[in-house]
Amino acid sequence: MKSFSDILLEQVQKIGSRLCIGLDIDADRITSIVSPSLQDLKNFTRMVIDATLDFAATYKLNFAFFERYGSAGFLWLEEVRDYIDDRRLTIADAKRGDISNSAKHYASALFDHFGFDAATVNPYMGCDAISPFLDNPEKGAFVICLTSNEGASDLQFQQVNGVRLYEKVIDLVKQLNVNNNCGLVVGATREEELEGIRQAAGDIPFLIPGVGAQGGDLETSVRIGNQGGIALINVSRGILYAGDQSEQAIREAAQDFFLRINAALEV
Amino acid sequence: MKSFSDILLEQVQKIGSRLCIGLDIDADRITSIVSPSLQDLKNFTRMVIDATLDFAATYKLNFAFFERYGSAGFLWLEEVRDYIDDRRLTIADAKRGDISNSAKHYASALFDHFGFDAATVNPYMGCDAISPFLDNPEKGAFVICLTSNEGASDLQFQQVNGVRLYEKVIDLVKQLNVNNNCGLVVGATREEELEGIRQAAGDIPFLIPGVGAQGGDLETSVRIGNQGGIALINVSRGILYAGDQSEQAIREAAQDFFLRINAALEV
Repeated sequence: MKSFSDILLEQVQKIGSRLCIGLDIDADRITSIVSPSLQDLKNFTRMVIDATLDFAATYKLNFAFFERYGSAGFLWLEEVRDYIDDRRLTIADAKRGDISNSAKHYASALFDHFGFDAATVNPYMGCDAISPFLDNPEKGAFVICLTSNEGASDLQFQQVNGVRLYEKVIDLVKQLNVNNNCGLVVGATREEELEGIRQAAGDIPFLIPGVGAQGGDLETSVRIGNQGGIALINVSRGILYAGDQSEQAIREAAQDFFLRINAALEV
Repeated sequence: MKSFSDILLEQVQKIGSRLCIGLDIDADRITSIVSPSLQDLKNFTRMVIDATLDFAATYKLNFAFFERYGSAGFLWLEEVRDYIDDRRLTIADAKRGDISNSAKHYASALFDHFGFDAATVNPYMGCDAISPFLDNPEKGAFVICLTSNEGASDLQFQQVNGVRLYEKVIDLVKQLNVNNNCGLVVGATREEELEGIRQAAGDIPFLIPGVGAQGGDLETSVRIGNQGGIALINVSRGILYAGDQSEQAIREAAQDFFLRINAALEV
């Protein structure tokens, strides 16, 4: 059986892309439709997928943007997941973290019910809260390591036994990676730390959000993140709301990020 | 405007209960129905609420048990929330943790869309990932502090600047408590630490899961947790699957926990 990391590497090589498109569809940011209904948002999402499929290695669905609409939002999420189907790998950006049976049910929901290939997971409760997401080698867990927000200093940068807490998380993830299906989430604004994280993590895949709107430098993230392992670069707003938000504008923005990522890889 | 902590205190005094009933409805544990359908689970949930309302201060809905069924599960969750309505305070045990817009959307989903009074929140990303859940003083956030699982030692017990990480979380929560609507989640199996957490936290409300099935001692949790502040004692399996799982067996189990909690308070 192939591991998630093998599958990801294969897909990245086959498609020739490390671009992850974040489907953070936000009614408040859509200017091309007046007061968009949920059906408008569904149509917009399909249009984004059609426009960007050629350039996307993976799609990431941030559950916050769907949960906002309750069960109707989760129906939309199911439709989006099913629409992408097996054409691209899909990441459930749900940041789940719970213990025992709850963690098992969450993993079952994300992988078996919705059909995602990977999920983002919060490490605060420790290894046994992460491991239910790793039982199936073909499914992956990207564990939150270092985030791009100011609040990262509250816990993630705290010193524990001579290392920072987020470095401790890297150690845990390396221990948990027996099925070769663990990844790490590292914010693109953390350029100073990224090199150290890549060195410590070996070839574990990275998911790097925060390029563009949040101020992370794309070229640096691509170059350092991909030294010795795959780094997916997530872009959401920079693609979804590009230009006049037409299919062509969105396609061109996705192509632009795709080309910039591949150019940075060759530097 | 009243704060969440004021509202909680009022409710606890009015009902004369500190029992939180966790609606972790699990098809795998229901023995009274063969291969329960989702409709069977909905009926079972209503029966549990009817049977236990007299003894419950609050109900806690663990999202894992609903998400397992995807959008249909969230429809069930909405029905349960609406069925309880304003009869009791409701806690969204969703352990959300995300940054900026995502955190805002999650808070909006849990409080505005579903209509919960409080939510459980994960502290790993720091204060700005928690604060969107605190903007409305009438809505509360129970921040995960110390959990009952073995993996708690991986991060929560790590030493940072002479204190343990979970103690650092108490400090953060005290800083964030300007609207008097913060709480802490502390596992019932952490008897040794509970006294120190109560001393450090002042009168901040506690939510204590892990009594019974997970091995936490009820009397100790009640007695120490309620010294100087409210501690809600969550019971799930010990009530939901009591005896022959009939309405009467469930009612008697809820009454038994209710009486034991109140007896422990008077010791």
